[in-house]
Amino acid sequence: MKNLNFSPLKKLEIILEGEHQEFATDLLDRAGVKSYTIINNLSGKGRQGFHEGHLMFNEDDVLIMIIAAVPEELVEPILEGFAPFFNEYSGVVFTSDIQVTRLVKFKN
Amino acid sequence: MKNLNFSPLKKLEIILEGEHQEFATDLLDRAGVKSYTIINNLSGKGRQGFHEGHLMFNEDDVLIMIIAAVPEELVEPILEGFAPFFNEYSGVVFTSDIQVTRLVKFKN
Amino acid sequence: MKNLNFSPLKKLEIILEGEHQEFATDLLDRAGVKSYTIINNLSGKGRQGFHEGHLMFNEDDVLIMIIAAVPEELVEPILEGFAPFFNEYSGVVFTSDIQVTRLVKFKN
Repeated sequence: MKNLNFSPLKKLEIILEGEHQEFATDLLDRAGVKSYTIINNLSGKGRQGFHEGHLMFNEDDVLIMIIAAVPEELVEPILEGFAPFFNEYSGVVFTSDIQVTRLVKFKN
Repeated sequence: MKNLNFSPLKKLEIILEGEHQEFATDLLDRAGVKSYTIINNLSGKGRQGFHEGHLMFNEDDVLIMIIAAVPEELVEPILEGFAPFFNEYSGVVFTSDIQVTRLVKFKN
Repeated sequence: MKNLNFSPLKKLEIILEGEHQEFATDLLDRAGVKSYTIINNLSGKGRQGFHEGHLMFNEDDVLIMIIAAVPEELVEPILEGFAPFFNEYSGVVFTSDIQVTRLVKFKN
């Protein structure tokens, strides 16, 4: 047990069209998010119909999921930052509880 | 805070062989699920041995994860719908708690 | 309801460079983990800078996420096993609560 010290964080799973990746990561950077992971080439069916993942071409037209683990106090500023975007574009953010053992990687 | 109104939903993460994607998405459609996202080309080790993701060929032989956020009352009907399938084929469904701020995208 | 019997498990989402996949899966195998799923070709920005996913080449230089559902009693041994690794290499493990209906797939 000596090495482990669990800390609660919030996991944000941000699903949006890949062409908007830079908007999203800029927002996360400005909010102080220290790290995130991106799953590319997702397919999805949503309110605007079916988005098919094309691996070899047209990559801008597929969905991505940006996964970020953030302190709870960052959730609201980040989601407020995304709110106007999701009024216009398809996508969603799932918020959930996680635990990590190496908090230094996520907090300043 | 004015833009945010968190609502609890259940996240289903359905992992199965890609060749059964249509069965799964048809089941979700019939259950009233309004949107889902699919991660393609997963590798996995499971009870039937190791499934290796081959990106360039044989895509039907890889795993996919279908991610859907659903109201709690849909979880049981959906999982009951999948139960006979998972008696025969490999795969699993993870159920977990999430929060979303734009419930209109998930409920009728 | 007759077919469903939810059991709590812990989901581990292990994000690390793909070149270390075998180390990670060996550790999971030795810990008694019966199944896991791997998402390949992730991009990420972390403490060691931005890792871009290159689909066509240099696959060893991208991130992967290994997803495993384990009984709670396995979480600490697994994370203790990874602790020395993450002292040296980039990556993280997210731990969260999930429920499954087919526990036989995860426990011996």
